[in-house]
Amino acid sequence: MLNQLLENTDTIIALATAPGKGAIAVLRVSGPEAITLTNNVFTGKDLTQQASHTIHFGTIRDEGEIIDEVLVSLFKGPNSYTGENVVEISCHGSGFIIQQLVKLFLKQGVRYAKAGEFTKRAFLNGKFDLAQAEAVADLIAADSEAAHQAAMNQMRGGFSRQIAELREKLIHFASMIELELDFSEEDVEFADRSALQTLINELSLIIEKLIASFEVGNVIKNGVPTVIAGKPNAGKSTLLNTLLNEEKAIVSDIPGTTRDFIEDELIIEGIGFRFIDTAGLRETEDRVEAIGVQRTYEKMKKASLIIYLFDINQTSEEELQEQITQLEKLEIPYIAVANKVDLFSEGALPEYLKNHPYILPISASSLNHMEPLKAKLLEIVNLDSFKTGNTIVTNVRHYESLVNTQTALSDVLSAIDEGVTGDFLALDIRNALHHLGEITGEITTDDLLANIFSKFCIGK
Amino acid sequence: MLNQLLENTDTIIALATAPGKGAIAVLRVSGPEAITLTNNVFTGKDLTQQASHTIHFGTIRDEGEIIDEVLVSLFKGPNSYTGENVVEISCHGSGFIIQQLVKLFLKQGVRYAKAGEFTKRAFLNGKFDLAQAEAVADLIAADSEAAHQAAMNQMRGGFSRQIAELREKLIHFASMIELELDFSEEDVEFADRSALQTLINELSLIIEKLIASFEVGNVIKNGVPTVIAGKPNAGKSTLLNTLLNEEKAIVSDIPGTTRDFIEDELIIEGIGFRFIDTAGLRETEDRVEAIGVQRTYEKMKKASLIIYLFDINQTSEEELQEQITQLEKLEIPYIAVANKVDLFSEGALPEYLKNHPYILPISASSLNHMEPLKAKLLEIVNLDSFKTGNTIVTNVRHYESLVNTQTALSDVLSAIDEGVTGDFLALDIRNALHHLGEITGEITTDDLLANIFSKFCIGK
Repeated sequence: MLNQLLENTDTIIALATAPGKGAIAVLRVSGPEAITLTNNVFTGKDLTQQASHTIHFGTIRDEGEIIDEVLVSLFKGPNSYTGENVVEISCHGSGFIIQQLVKLFLKQGVRYAKAGEFTKRAFLNGKFDLAQAEAVADLIAADSEAAHQAAMNQMRGGFSRQIAELREKLIHFASMIELELDFSEEDVEFADRSALQTLINELSLIIEKLIASFEVGNVIKNGVPTVIAGKPNAGKSTLLNTLLNEEKAIVSDIPGTTRDFIEDELIIEGIGFRFIDTAGLRETEDRVEAIGVQRTYEKMKKASLIIYLFDINQTSEEELQEQITQLEKLEIPYIAVANKVDLFSEGALPEYLKNHPYILPISASSLNHMEPLKAKLLEIVNLDSFKTGNTIVTNVRHYESLVNTQTALSDVLSAIDEGVTGDFLALDIRNALHHLGEITGEITTDDLLANIFSKFCIGK
Repeated sequence: MLNQLLENTDTIIALATAPGKGAIAVLRVSGPEAITLTNNVFTGKDLTQQASHTIHFGTIRDEGEIIDEVLVSLFKGPNSYTGENVVEISCHGSGFIIQQLVKLFLKQGVRYAKAGEFTKRAFLNGKFDLAQAEAVADLIAADSEAAHQAAMNQMRGGFSRQIAELREKLIHFASMIELELDFSEEDVEFADRSALQTLINELSLIIEKLIASFEVGNVIKNGVPTVIAGKPNAGKSTLLNTLLNEEKAIVSDIPGTTRDFIEDELIIEGIGFRFIDTAGLRETEDRVEAIGVQRTYEKMKKASLIIYLFDINQTSEEELQEQITQLEKLEIPYIAVANKVDLFSEGALPEYLKNHPYILPISASSLNHMEPLKAKLLEIVNLDSFKTGNTIVTNVRHYESLVNTQTALSDVLSAIDEGVTGDFLALDIRNALHHLGEITGEITTDDLLANIFSKFCIGK
């Protein structure tokens, strides 16, 4: 199957750095002819005679005319990103120069790379498996500590090792059963059925945990959609600004890195919270305003978390009770936050707060008061499994393959219960193996690969 | 003077590639501690024991936690861009990773570089002179063949060599005159006055040519502001689209490179023409429309070139004559273009065109008809001096220094004529030397340097 896919033996080029003006840009060339074709247009030394992992200064010329002074980095296959010969050309970061250099290579028969094609070649050349390749794209997209860590762990093969172990155990039993089939005339059982049952149960438990981790994984990868709701003037905007301002100041410390950050995203201890703006909630006779309130409820229903903010000076216990009843109908985790406590002197807070110990009293403009709120947010997201360093599934494709594996495993269990013959059992086990294999790419198709790598950026 | 400026011996870091998401990003670290500080956070091998111009794969960690898998390129001073130790870290192109890596270096006492600081260090360490350093920024900004070629020539020292030769000759004479001053009691003349006169005249001629080249240099660097004028429905938009479409198709061939190009700029044989949109010109009683027409005339006055387009089917010889008279009052080079000749059969064009052989008959929608128009545009810009490979001055600062040098030289000539004594002559010659020295940076000040390098991008 893999050999069939190895038809890509032409040489490809792409801009590997972000487009736009920078001090330098890097073009990446990969393929059997990468070094010789670069050497054809390079003046300085004979690149074909240089060692791998060395850097060479010189000029690139088109029919004698200098396009740029460049640094050329050489990587000889298989010791390169793609496993092929790779040349990285570091040129001045001008669109004109990049264009001229690319044209010069195209003129020599090099092809402009498709999205993800370098990483696809790395996969096809066995530099890493499919789950690791997918993690490369996740790593580039990651904009929080947790997403970054999950992608890094996956890229470095943590997840793949776990899947490989599971597969190995299953393959062992599958081969025992296949052996039975060879001797089927003699009615022997090489594979102990109760040992198989124990194994399947064991695998099933691990896969169950991985499936469950996707809930956290999804939060890690995409952030926690969080609605700040409450009546008009409860202080929602103040709260959001106080939460965000602090973080924004940190982010904008380093020029050129902020543009990747979503306007209203807050990273708390590495977890992204995506804040969703809402109109104030109030009872209204006005039809237009009622629609706005209706929309807010719609948004609240889609959130993973609601911060319900109320002005403690304007809210009686009865009102509060009614609002909380409404909130609980949504069946979404929420934090009730009493705002504007700074208007009371210490100890003079309304008595009824004592009856609702889960309510967090704050002043929305006070940075100090954000700490307990952040702690509550983290508590609700509950990332214990993340923090203990367990493997987290962040990819929908992997999640689906795991669910399919689980189904196949319970088919195996039923089959054992029903005492079916080895050949049917083998079929079910192979089915489970197939779905596990999809994750790391032992089992793959052209369509699947095209689909995965088309989501990459060009140059990766 | 230079030693005084060499106070920058701390280690600096910056993102060297364009901001935004790419497959990879490159961080550049320069300074005495660049290699040792990178080694502190790098896991893979001992970077301090590796040769210059080699590349090393490994991980960068912050207190044990992996930030990224990276390739580290080592350049040991003085064999580096800045002349100092330089490390280039090629990481995954994510804003988050860049931010974390930069923070890690800042934590170690590295400073985030100011705009142009790497190139400034290269200049201060004698890697190249000021004119060459300035050409680096021009090279990155260049988006036409001609601008690129002029910047490349300047970066590679073509202009600097010419200035150095001029200076050398003047210095020789200056030293002869200074010698006279040492022996002034004895009333000798070491410096032959008539030989000096010949030299100054010779230098003056060269400088005159360089000054004159700025007109072309400015066009090369900034493009030729070109107005397409004419009555409503003369076909101005069609013409612009036909001119631009062809070029745009070429530019958009290569993904990721187009965004640097100005919407309505056309590059013809390497020269940029910046087209300026205008309202149609017509006699009108309407006051608002009259203002629009007035504005068009204003724009035309600022243009370097006017394409005057008229619909040959709607224009009598008398009308044409009147329009051309109006045009010539502007004293700006123009091309008169008769549009919609496709509505005539071959040979049936109005007789009066024969009386105006300079008029170009075209069909604005025909790509074939663009070639003679482009040839005319190039003819008017007249870039002969550019094509013969002569040095072109593209930088206003250099232009001003050359003008000041010229003034000083004619002061020297007058002084010789007036038979003034050697000490006054020495003063004038030193003044000329001073202005020449400003160009390449033999003469410089902190303010001048700050002003020049602040126009660079960060990371360069």
